[in-house]
Amino acid sequence: MKKILIANRGEIALRIMRSAREMGIKTVAVYSEADREALHVRYADEAICIGPAASNQSYLLGEKIVEACKITGAEAIHPGYGFLSENASFARLVQASGLTLIGPTPEAMEIMGNKLSAKAAALKYQIPMVPGTEEAITDVNEAKLRAIEVGFPILIKAAAGGGGKGMRIVEQVADFEEQMQLAVSEATSAFGDGSVFIERYVSSPRHIEIQVLGDTHGNIVHLFERDCSVQRRHQKVVEEAPSSVLTAEIREKMGKCAVDVARSVNYVGAGTVEFILDEKLDFFFLEMNTRLQVEHPVTEMITGLDLVKEQIRIARGEALSYRQEDLQINGHAMELRVYAEDPENNFLPDIGVLSTYKTPKGNGVRVDDGFEQGMEIPIYYDPMIAKLITYGKTREEAMDRMIRAIDEYEITGIKTTLGFGKFVMQHEAFRSGDFNTHFVSKYFSPDRLKETDGQEAMIAAVVAAMSYKKAAIPVQSQLQTETLSNWKRNRTNYN
Amino acid sequence: MKKILIANRGEIALRIMRSAREMGIKTVAVYSEADREALHVRYADEAICIGPAASNQSYLLGEKIVEACKITGAEAIHPGYGFLSENASFARLVQASGLTLIGPTPEAMEIMGNKLSAKAAALKYQIPMVPGTEEAITDVNEAKLRAIEVGFPILIKAAAGGGGKGMRIVEQVADFEEQMQLAVSEATSAFGDGSVFIERYVSSPRHIEIQVLGDTHGNIVHLFERDCSVQRRHQKVVEEAPSSVLTAEIREKMGKCAVDVARSVNYVGAGTVEFILDEKLDFFFLEMNTRLQVEHPVTEMITGLDLVKEQIRIARGEALSYRQEDLQINGHAMELRVYAEDPENNFLPDIGVLSTYKTPKGNGVRVDDGFEQGMEIPIYYDPMIAKLITYGKTREEAMDRMIRAIDEYEITGIKTTLGFGKFVMQHEAFRSGDFNTHFVSKYFSPDRLKETDGQEAMIAAVVAAMSYKKAAIPVQSQLQTETLSNWKRNRTNYN
Repeated sequence: MKKILIANRGEIALRIMRSAREMGIKTVAVYSEADREALHVRYADEAICIGPAASNQSYLLGEKIVEACKITGAEAIHPGYGFLSENASFARLVQASGLTLIGPTPEAMEIMGNKLSAKAAALKYQIPMVPGTEEAITDVNEAKLRAIEVGFPILIKAAAGGGGKGMRIVEQVADFEEQMQLAVSEATSAFGDGSVFIERYVSSPRHIEIQVLGDTHGNIVHLFERDCSVQRRHQKVVEEAPSSVLTAEIREKMGKCAVDVARSVNYVGAGTVEFILDEKLDFFFLEMNTRLQVEHPVTEMITGLDLVKEQIRIARGEALSYRQEDLQINGHAMELRVYAEDPENNFLPDIGVLSTYKTPKGNGVRVDDGFEQGMEIPIYYDPMIAKLITYGKTREEAMDRMIRAIDEYEITGIKTTLGFGKFVMQHEAFRSGDFNTHFVSKYFSPDRLKETDGQEAMIAAVVAAMSYKKAAIPVQSQLQTETLSNWKRNRTNYN
Repeated sequence: MKKILIANRGEIALRIMRSAREMGIKTVAVYSEADREALHVRYADEAICIGPAASNQSYLLGEKIVEACKITGAEAIHPGYGFLSENASFARLVQASGLTLIGPTPEAMEIMGNKLSAKAAALKYQIPMVPGTEEAITDVNEAKLRAIEVGFPILIKAAAGGGGKGMRIVEQVADFEEQMQLAVSEATSAFGDGSVFIERYVSSPRHIEIQVLGDTHGNIVHLFERDCSVQRRHQKVVEEAPSSVLTAEIREKMGKCAVDVARSVNYVGAGTVEFILDEKLDFFFLEMNTRLQVEHPVTEMITGLDLVKEQIRIARGEALSYRQEDLQINGHAMELRVYAEDPENNFLPDIGVLSTYKTPKGNGVRVDDGFEQGMEIPIYYDPMIAKLITYGKTREEAMDRMIRAIDEYEITGIKTTLGFGKFVMQHEAFRSGDFNTHFVSKYFSPDRLKETDGQEAMIAAVVAAMSYKKAAIPVQSQLQTETLSNWKRNRTNYN
């Protein structure tokens, strides 16, 4: 494998190219017209424009990507995450074209891409599922019996549902009939179908996922867990490894389950098995993501492995060079997704130009990004600017380093989640490890940001102070305490 | 300890402030008039100008630094490396002023600052020294007998000597008398003193040093070795940890010796014990540096410890939180000192403005620097621009990552050692681990650089190509292979 094409953009395209370059493999970038000036285009050895800005006219067009391979002589394709990364038809097209997809088989994608077939595959290995009815029911008495079996609290949800309609949480058996009737009538009027599913309601859920790697020789290992419980709009925003809540025993059990789920589809490559964990540390299978995750760097930090290199080695047919018992966790890693979003306005995407863009540096800080100062965040794609990753000997050090790195990060021109990240890192519930997926709705409100950050206002103040500094300091050899020290003392933090 | 003053500048001042900030400690910067715009001034919570550019009128003036502490209320001083960091008088002044020096006692500095007293201290613990005469001699016959005892090859050096005058390497006993007479007469005419020392000549020396940490409770541990054998003008330029040549057994022996050397002066804080290692893996004590070393980051990478935080904890009187047996090596780290020097002109310092300055990023890359694009490298101080540190699971990965990071580093306006670093990382002798302190004189010549780097020429080519790109690509949705891919194919490397 001498040349690979990266069928993606932004930070993940750059991140893949860096690993390829370290392995002596040439890289080909593809780009839309909106990404003409993007860093991934500049970083690659070759680059090809594949269409207009809209993804469905560029990054989502599998045929163009295969054509770009033919033209450039690339032998393999790394799809990154998103776009075509979990598209079984694309995987088949790549195979049929005599190219290698750096990822799992189309069959594994297909099975894990569908909730029912994924569940069926996992059940072959007795993987724990959230207890509940397997088929939709309408009869109240039957439903009540099943609810008692499953155990309260119970979640009733419309079989045809969506958007919270026909959904009811029932705390105790006495309330069941009334709530069921409400759910059924709501579902009937909304969807014309009153049937419902019943399942255990996990009231304090943590999102824990296990990274797995499988090779073409049948070896599968797990690389421990990531805790992705801090979410906004049901999307991850802060991730860490290891989880602050898992015991060694649960970690081993979950790891074994994840390997079994992967084995159920003869998994090849890097994948992630997601679980929900309740207060009693019981865990249940949610789904498997058949690609590299956004949050994979935290796993790299604690294992020392380069997951993209592992993916490439696996795609070359190499066997894993370690067994499960060779792997161990060293230290602790945190990741903050730095989104172009406004935390004061329900995290809605913000757009514009990165007027100031300076990234933090130093011991234990890693920034995976795809932008430079002066560049624009395009409106066409995911609004992630960067992933800010910190590593420490302990969880506390990783958090303190994240706060330091957030303070050092300078972004103006666009609203970001940096201040929100600082809020999380300083919050008692997060620091103590006592949090779940309700963290944001429970603790966060925009006015909390003003106490912790106000990045833009702070930078503006500093810029003003800098001008003052230049003007005010006379050239003399005395101690000039009346100048810098004064304005510096009056603020709590620099950048 | 709520506030510390950093009595230094550049990358090490920033590096210390980052750790302090992560610990919730406020920082005070001192600066000379030449450093008015320096990053360490901007990063600190407070900053005080202490004099004109020349070090002996600013950074070397202990009294001004103590005065700056009084004015700002800083309770402790971190001296960094260089400047006042090994100055026992300064350490005494700090003590007498009721302040804390983050470093060892003045007594330890004094003993280790003098070759004879350092040797005497180390001999209490039977630390191996380069075999030779302890006192200067003039008698040829006596010298010959001692030479035979010590073993050939032998180094004869003038007691009053310096600059290689009166120095002779003697390969075999038959040549001894003649060479001794030449050395004596050379020394007599150069220094008016014909007496000489005789010692074993280590023909294939490696420079190996051991990091130690001692607390105020009498605990001393070592953090394994750094190999600093790649030097130019007798100064380190590439360092790594661990060494590619040590066995576990020698590592343990050397580590124990280093701890003993530290114990001989009741060492408190971070220090480094330097050894010379010969081809048979026999090692001899050279000296102890009673401060943080430039190359300390490679030790941080393989141990996960933050050495500056450890220094601060020790200065606060805390006991080390680990024993020797708790420490282990994880992975491999490399450091390249990026100097403003011209490798094509005997590594003479180069000065000017950093017209382009973009640092590499991504997995396993750390840049400790003190400059931004557009800044000038001042002529008054050490011409180091940055330390480029890479970490990998293996030595090979750390080297490959270093090459990738060097390629990604963009510096124009000033000549640097980046290309030289790439030459080292690609050289067979370095890659195989078969090298010594003669590496540069043996393998390097300026014309070798043209094969591996030519950073400036390359960047100029890319800049030209970028302009071409902007002009040449029409906005259309077809595959535009005739544009980017063509010019990209014609060069081997981007940036």
